Amino acid sequence: MAAGQISQETAEHAAHLTVGILGGTGDEGRGLACRLAISGNRVIIGSRNAERAAAAAATLASPRVTGAVNEQAARAADIVIVAVPFEGHAELLAQLVAALDGKIVIDCVNPIAFDAQGAYPVPVPEGSAAQQAAAVLGGSTVVGAFHHVSAPLLLDPEVAELDMDVLVLGDDRNATDLVQALAERIPGVRGVYAGRLRNCGQVEALTANLVSVNRRYKAHAGLRVTDV
Amino acid sequence: MAAGQISQETAEHAAHLTVGILGGTGDEGRGLACRLAISGNRVIIGSRNAERAAAAAATLASPRVTGAVNEQAARAADIVIVAVPFEGHAELLAQLVAALDGKIVIDCVNPIAFDAQGAYPVPVPEGSAAQQAAAVLGGSTVVGAFHHVSAPLLLDPEVAELDMDVLVLGDDRNATDLVQALAERIPGVRGVYAGRLRNCGQVEALTANLVSVNRRYKAHAGLRVTDV
Repeated sequence: MAAGQISQETAEHAAHLTVGILGGTGDEGRGLACRLAISGNRVIIGSRNAERAAAAAATLASPRVTGAVNEQAARAADIVIVAVPFEGHAELLAQLVAALDGKIVIDCVNPIAFDAQGAYPVPVPEGSAAQQAAAVLGGSTVVGAFHHVSAPLLLDPEVAELDMDVLVLGDDRNATDLVQALAERIPGVRGVYAGRLRNCGQVEALTANLVSVNRRYKAHAGLRVTDV
Repeated sequence: MAAGQISQETAEHAAHLTVGILGGTGDEGRGLACRLAISGNRVIIGSRNAERAAAAAATLASPRVTGAVNEQAARAADIVIVAVPFEGHAELLAQLVAALDGKIVIDCVNPIAFDAQGAYPVPVPEGSAAQQAAAVLGGSTVVGAFHHVSAPLLLDPEVAELDMDVLVLGDDRNATDLVQALAERIPGVRGVYAGRLRNCGQVEALTANLVSVNRRYKAHAGLRVTDV
């Protein structure tokens, strides 16, 4: 694994971020909260319901993790991860336009659905969930990342390091650099720039393929980019 | 890298296949021909023009590689790789319906285009180039594979092993197993089942992301699937 191209200054910036996680009561959100808190970041788990947010935070038993309603989490955080189901994604963000104004918003939403043959991608009019977020949040800088990170691995205390790269997509170099640095706060993970936001749709949809891989091989599949 | 799940019988079957490569005069086709021939497969490079096919075959200087017009390559081969540009893909296959009848057809076509901001996916009415091939070739078994294999690496004699997995997609288990085994004829490559054909569009489109990775990191990026 080659050294990243993220500056020490950016890595230190990432180390001091307070991270809000909208929809953080789900396994993906709690898993990211867990790993980031272990690495030293403050995390605010957001939910529609303050009690559910507090209860989810309590399961992680870390003084660095608290719970709040989504809007409060968005306002109090330096950077915000959106980890809600695709259903309701646009509606939630539309309520948080002011709270998220001027912030970097990391969208990790995978618009996929399931039928008898497994998972498949759901078409998104804007091209991807991340582009939908950017369309709704005109005053935020949207970055796509963390689409393929396995919640069970994040939450498994016996997994010391995650063997995977996080693909980071966006149109603002400072923002993608910072999100790469944030991803690298999770032991084992490398943040890899993987293109502009217009190329996020296939990264989100690829989650359906990883579901197929997991079923065939009984795995928690992730991706590594080679020759980087 | 865990052991594959491909039987020895399937691996031996793959070892004895004569492989036709439609559009095999391009770098991707010649690169695949080169590696498969080194591994012992007979390869027929197909082109619209017999002289160009013969000339492309001659560049590889292998007694196992010959050239022919596409239809003759399709008829003479046991299994056929489609490595043409997306423009003209459906038209070419429509001319070869009879020649490809009953055969496994491996589509590695990436419907992407370029503008000033880099590469981006081109929408395909059928969902993917592979599904387009399946729609045209009613009597063939279409498998998607080899989308992300770097032609420069395939053609570089100093690269002994390729550090990448080949994602293999299809609806027929025997066919995807055989294509996984064929991919594994290339040193360093592992064939990984990655879902049904309906999930091929995002795998093809992901080539645009790998172009972005290559530009940012000055690399020939590939993918490895972890925990498999």
